[in-house]
Formats: sequence, C-alpha cells, structure tokens
Amino acid sequence: MTPEAFRQAGHELIDWIADYRQSLEGRRVLADVRPGDVRRALPTEPPAAPEPFDRVLADLEAIVLPGVTNVQHPMHFGWFPSNAALASVLGDLASSGIGGLGISWESCPSLTEVEEVTCDWMRQLVGLSSGWSGTIQDTASSAVVVALLAARERATDFGGTRGGLQAEAAPLTVYTTGHAHSSVLKAVAIAGYGVDNLRVVPVDPVSRAMVPDALAEMIAADVAAGLRPAAVVASVGTTGTTAFDPLPEMATVLAAAAGDGPPVWLHVDAAMAGSAMICPEFRRLWDGVESADSLSFNPHKWLGTILDCSLFYVRDLQHLVRVFSSNPSYLQSSADGQVTQFRDWGIPLGRRFRALKLWFHLRLDGVESMQQRVRRDVANAAWLAGVVEATPGWEVVAPVQLQTVCVRHLPAAATAEVLEAHTQAWAAELNRSGAAYVTPSKLDDRWMVRVSVGVESTEREHVARLWELMQDAAKRAEDASSIL
Amino acid sequence: MTPEAFRQAGHELIDWIADYRQSLEGRRVLADVRPGDVRRALPTEPPAAPEPFDRVLADLEAIVLPGVTNVQHPMHFGWFPSNAALASVLGDLASSGIGGLGISWESCPSLTEVEEVTCDWMRQLVGLSSGWSGTIQDTASSAVVVALLAARERATDFGGTRGGLQAEAAPLTVYTTGHAHSSVLKAVAIAGYGVDNLRVVPVDPVSRAMVPDALAEMIAADVAAGLRPAAVVASVGTTGTTAFDPLPEMATVLAAAAGDGPPVWLHVDAAMAGSAMICPEFRRLWDGVESADSLSFNPHKWLGTILDCSLFYVRDLQHLVRVFSSNPSYLQSSADGQVTQFRDWGIPLGRRFRALKLWFHLRLDGVESMQQRVRRDVANAAWLAGVVEATPGWEVVAPVQLQTVCVRHLPAAATAEVLEAHTQAWAAELNRSGAAYVTPSKLDDRWMVRVSVGVESTEREHVARLWELMQDAAKRAEDASSIL
Repeated sequence: MTPEAFRQAGHELIDWIADYRQSLEGRRVLADVRPGDVRRALPTEPPAAPEPFDRVLADLEAIVLPGVTNVQHPMHFGWFPSNAALASVLGDLASSGIGGLGISWESCPSLTEVEEVTCDWMRQLVGLSSGWSGTIQDTASSAVVVALLAARERATDFGGTRGGLQAEAAPLTVYTTGHAHSSVLKAVAIAGYGVDNLRVVPVDPVSRAMVPDALAEMIAADVAAGLRPAAVVASVGTTGTTAFDPLPEMATVLAAAAGDGPPVWLHVDAAMAGSAMICPEFRRLWDGVESADSLSFNPHKWLGTILDCSLFYVRDLQHLVRVFSSNPSYLQSSADGQVTQFRDWGIPLGRRFRALKLWFHLRLDGVESMQQRVRRDVANAAWLAGVVEATPGWEVVAPVQLQTVCVRHLPAAATAEVLEAHTQAWAAELNRSGAAYVTPSKLDDRWMVRVSVGVESTEREHVARLWELMQDAAKRAEDASSIL
Repeated sequence: MTPEAFRQAGHELIDWIADYRQSLEGRRVLADVRPGDVRRALPTEPPAAPEPFDRVLADLEAIVLPGVTNVQHPMHFGWFPSNAALASVLGDLASSGIGGLGISWESCPSLTEVEEVTCDWMRQLVGLSSGWSGTIQDTASSAVVVALLAARERATDFGGTRGGLQAEAAPLTVYTTGHAHSSVLKAVAIAGYGVDNLRVVPVDPVSRAMVPDALAEMIAADVAAGLRPAAVVASVGTTGTTAFDPLPEMATVLAAAAGDGPPVWLHVDAAMAGSAMICPEFRRLWDGVESADSLSFNPHKWLGTILDCSLFYVRDLQHLVRVFSSNPSYLQSSADGQVTQFRDWGIPLGRRFRALKLWFHLRLDGVESMQQRVRRDVANAAWLAGVVEATPGWEVVAPVQLQTVCVRHLPAAATAEVLEAHTQAWAAELNRSGAAYVTPSKLDDRWMVRVSVGVESTEREHVARLWELMQDAAKRAEDASSIL
C-alpha cells in the first residue's frame, strides 16, 4: 500500500472509528454471536490479490463488530475497565506509522528514552519514590512471571539460570492469597517453582486481605522444614473484590524472616487499582509499597492507555538486568554502557514504540481529567453500593474500596443451592440482553455478581440505569423460576 | 478526547504519517542523537492540563523523529527487516479504535476467531500441514520460552509446574548451535534449565548448520551420564548468516534417541526466514519441518505485518493448553469447551486484537505482491553477493541463502588484528553518515558486515547505491588508517 493509498484509506478509517465510538451507546454490550459464527463468515483461504479498502471496511462493520463485546460501551461493567482512550489510540497510530524497532537503544533511541520519561512520569503520578525504575510490559501476567524469575534468581544466587533449578537442593516457596489473580498460580508454574510450592495464605473473612501472622507462620514452618521462601505476591486490589493486602505488616514479616539468607522478594500486583494512585487520597491503600521489590499496574485498564500497556517497576534494577540481559555482537554499539537497553528488563527482545500511546494520552488528556474521572467512578461505585444496601433483598458482599461493587440478590425463599442458580440466572439474562454487562464471579466458593465501574464514558446515569436493569433481571429470574 | 476531537486530530496524524513515509528517502537512516538527547528535550514532570494536538505533533517531528533510526528507509540494511506495511498499520488502528479486550472468547469473539482464521491462512501460505495450530505472540523470544516450557513439562510429565523443577532428579538438557539467536540462551535460563545444561552443537564450517551426528553424540553422552535431553532448538535461518539447520536429519536423530522416555521436543526458530516460505521454491530450506513440535516465525520482520506479530504453531495443542491453562470463575462462560481460549496458549492473559493487522495486511496487499517482494529481495541479495565476489579485495563470508549477505573488505596489507579494526571502522563510518545502515556482527569470532536486504521500499537501485557507499567507506577507512 502506497502512502497516498494509506492517506485516503486512513481518513476513512479515522471517520469510521469516530463514528463507531459515537454510536456505542446505541449498540449492544455483549457480542451477539455463537461460537464459530465469525470464523464461518470469513473465507477459509487467504486472498491472492489485493482487495479494495471499502470491502475490508464493510467486513469490519458486518462481520467483525457483531462479534465484539463492546468494552468501551458506557454500560459495560464487566471484568476490569479496559479503556482505550482516543488520545492513546492516536499515540499508538503514531507508533505504527513511524514503525520504529526496539531491539537496542541504537535501533530507536526515542523509543527507549520516551519510555524512560513516561515511566518516570507515571512513577511520580502514583507517588512512588525515585528509587524505582520502570518499563512497559504487555500485561501484568508477564510482569508477575518476570518478578518471580527475579525472585528465583535472588533466592538461588543465580542457580536457576546457571546450573538449573533442578540442581537446587531445597525447594523454593511462594506465598499469596486465594484471592490473587490467576496469573500468579500460572507464573509459579512457569517459573518452575511448581504449584505444590505455592502457599495460599489465609485472608481476613471481611476484608479478604492477607493475614500477616498467617504469612509469618507459613514462612517459619517452611524454613523449619528446610524449604526456602523466595517470594510473596501481594494483591493491591484483588480481582474479585478489590481487597488490599496489608503491605507494611507483610514487609515486617519478611524483614523478620530474612535471617542470613537473601530477603524474600515482595511483588505487588496492583494491575487495576494502581491507576487509582494518581489521586493522592487513595494512596493509603498501598501504604508500605516502598518496601516492595517489584510492582506492576496497568494503565490499559482503568486509566485507559490502550492495551497493551502494563507498567513494571523494580527497586534493584541491576539484579533484574543480570537475570534478563543478553548482548549478542549484532546488537552492540558505541552507546552501550551509557544507555538503557530495555531488552534486558524482561522476556521479549523486540518491542514496539509503546511509550507513545502513554505520552499522547498523558499530554492530550492531561492528568487532572484522569484524576477527575477516577474520583467520579469511585463516587459512582459508592452510590451504587449505597442504593443496593438500602434495598431489601439485596446485599453488598464485600467492602467497596474503589470502583468494584460485589452484590447478590436474595429472594426470600432461596436456599443456598437455589441462590447459586438464581445469581447466575439473572446475571446471564442481563448480559444476554445486551443492555449491560456484569461479571458473575465466585466469592468464598459462592456465586455473586461483580459490578466494575470505570468505563471512560460511564456517568452516574449509566450506573443508575444498570441498577434498574439489575433489579428487573433479578425479578424476572425470580418470577421465571419454578422454585422461587 | 471526544470522538470529534479524535476525528480532527486523526486526519492530521494520518497525513503526517503519509508525509513521513513519503519523505523517508530524504532522511538519514541512523538516528542522529547522543545518549540522553531525547530525554533531556522532554519535561521531567507530567502535564497536568491537556495540551493541544498540534504541540504534540510538533514534538513528534522535532524531538521524537531525530531519535528514530528509520528502519522503514530503503537504505536500511541492518539487523532483520522490520517492515511496517501501511496496510497493517490500518489494521492495527482498527484494532485500537475498536478497543477490544482479549481475555476470553466471550470478551471479544471476533478477536479470537479472526486470529484463528488468519493464523490458519498463514499456515497455508507457508505450506504447513493442517496438523498445526497457530496463534499470535509478541516476539519469537517469547515463543521460544513457551516452547521450552512445553518441552520441560513433556520431559518431566508436568513435574516442573506441579512439584517444581527442583524436585526433578536428573537435569534436563537443551541443544542448539552457537549460531542460534540470543533468545534461546535466555529462554533456557528463564525456563530454569540453567545455561550449564545448554549444549552447543557443532556446525558445519561452511554452511554453519548443525551437524546432526554431533547432536546424536551429545544426546547419547548426556543420556549415558544420567541426564534427560528435553529439547532441541533448530534455527531455520540463523541471525548471523541465515544458516539452516538440517531438520530431516535432526528428526531422525531425535526419533532414534527417544527410547522409552518422552520424545525430545523440537522447536524451529524461523523468526526471519519463515516469511520466505510464502514462496514455494524456498520451502526446501525447511524440509522436515513437519516433524517439529513447535515453530515460530515473525510476519513483523520481512513480511511487514507491523510489530508485534510473531506466529507460534504447535502440533500437540492439548499439551500446550495443559501447560498454560487457567480458568478463574470470573472468566467462565457458557461458551467454554466450544471455543478457543488463547490465554491458555502462552504467558499473557490479556491480548490486543492483533489479528486485525495481519487480516488487513493480507487482504489489502494480497499474497501475490508479498511473494513478488520476497523474490525481489532474494534476487537483490544474490546480485549484491555476485558483485562483491567479483570485486578484488572483497569477500562474501557465508553462503547467501536468502536475503542476507555477509561480507568483508580485505585491504592487502591487513593483518588479522588490523582487519578487525578496519571492518568495524568502515561499517561505523557508513552507519554514522546516515546514508545507509548495515550491521557489524561477529562470525567465528571475527567481525564482518551483515547486509540484510528486505525493506519494503528497497529496490535494486538502493542495493547498488549501498554497494557504492560500502566501497567508498572501506576506501576512506583504509586511507585514514595509519597502519593500512
């Protein structure tokens, strides 16, 4: 495609996107397709000859969009917010247009240095000290893998990367709660610790936050058994209920547990809630974060710098680089030693110019408007929690700390078993309607419904409408039930 | 940013990109900045209030672009081609505009199913059988980590993920050549094998391809020593000289070595050369690929689907999913079991709608034009090799199999030591000039210069101009030398 053809098609596509975003409120939230529908609508063989742009755009509208769950829709209250702020869309377009290649500083100095600057801007914005070094990764799942690899190598004095983890005498152990994100379990498996060596630390029954004394006891028991505690993953905002593990108390436990060996690595997973820290009043929720070794949070969630933009910060950068560095001759240059080589901060060698989307986003939207939006969402969640609590037959099942409200509707006649089916039924009905989307999820092994407030365009009126829809759906499910 | 503001800024940015691409030939190739220049030109603190788009665009031009090494420039012959075809830029823009979220099939069915379709299109295009299942990853570096994790778990019957690699009695070993990409060594470290357990298999002195008999001997020796051979990484096109490891012979070695234990995993790293397989006449270079267990190649290199778009194919999908699956309650839906969950095929949970860039690229450019371009580049490389070979004082130092030409200029008076300095000197001078970019690299521990042909806009005239520039630079370096 020539630049001139790109210019013409690009203008069309920009208009198409602007129109799509403006049309969102008139669309369904949940995709309206069955498994295989999209696949069957596409040719099974690739195109030999070029197709006109209009045909591709028409397929985007007719085939792709019906299969999109519109997470940018103001009535989307599912999973985590996954905002794709248009300012960041432009930044990512600039990145693609430039087509820069990040494999060394020399291959694109701006790519490295704008990433350094924007990661430092974000560090300041969430109130972290200058002792942290930051980079952009794809997801918090990758970040926790990187953190657990760094922890593994600190615990074994680089035994895992050199002699192999198999040569290590005593198993390494990792600690987290049962409310940690699924990626923690996965990272424990990937890093070779083995899930048998993951300790599930009990939580407080109300706050669902880790009990530090329990952590201390488990570590002591493992040490006594000849095992080697290597890492703790703290959740700063769990996925289920936005619970906050108590970082200061955990740090105290780890400091006491260290003994003569290397300290236990503390990784903070703040994937969603980290975005709230751009507002100083929420930073009490991660008090003690400075004592951690690594930290990740995702501007691609609540904040809205488009996927994939997960920030990863470490205290001991030299250690991280020692774990992940590689320096083949074909990537060496005269600038080595004076510059940052982000390839040595994680798994992939090559990287996109991802910092541009963060840079555009921060500059074009400005921080004040982002803070205002975070505060709006927290207030909307508090409002929803209030009206749910005030309504007979409804309950809020977990403390509302930020923007997630976990609820149940409790029909008078419902047994525990019937309630399980009822909760899934009304949530499914609401989601299928396309009018709004919420996430059915389990808490203490029982179904509840998570309402995650935080889409960029979600205002109070949308939350109020959701509340009406929830009540309608619950009533219809109750009426339709042969038992209730 | 509102959709209307996006519309206006988007049109400006599209024009800016088209203008930039059209202006490339008048620009330098290598970035003209010193370490820290870009960083120092940016504010140290983030912006509180929104800035106008024009100011951001002006900074993009004035601050960012001078710090970009223009790998889209027709005179860029460095590293690997990293084409960012404008058709794929549009596809990525569509992805960003839609802002889809890939965490489950339900969160964006189109994201999953277009990825299934395009990965299958690519499978057909490179002539792989239908026995392969494909997905898009960020880079081949991540792909080799995933492959070595799958291999680790096959060798240990899931011992690494369950009981931990430390509980395994006998060390696992991995085999590759000294010409394999640096990511293989890194993946061996990450996956916990330990680099001490990486065996560097000798290569043929001319072809630089793995010697299968040497592989057989090393595996036999390790088995005799009580170790467990787990994986072999074959390079289909090495980074240095585009050497091709002999897959059929290697497969024979592995079949004979298997014995009663699980078969040794064969991963094929075809990161760059895989793109050539869209032309049937080059598929002889990976004869035997069907016997591999996994395979990666990067459309984001020669083919030009913009970063990051690395394809990963496996034979035993069920095994892969067993290693990487996670299924938290908040991601469950009624479609489970009937659909693909790409989160279970690798490390990250969330994914962008990356398939759109491949889909747009294939449809808007068409496969025939891509094939034509690959053939053009191979012919240009052969032409360059021919004129270098025909010129006294110059040599081609490795077989030219596709688009990489490795050369040295040999001044008559040069000792081995002086030659090392001379090679680096003329390459550095050429690169600093900004007129072209080549990669100084080591082969058999001696410096040479890699000329990697394959930028989308590079025609024969550019390769001819490069050859003039190389001769000029070599002559100037020779003249300037106090020794030569």
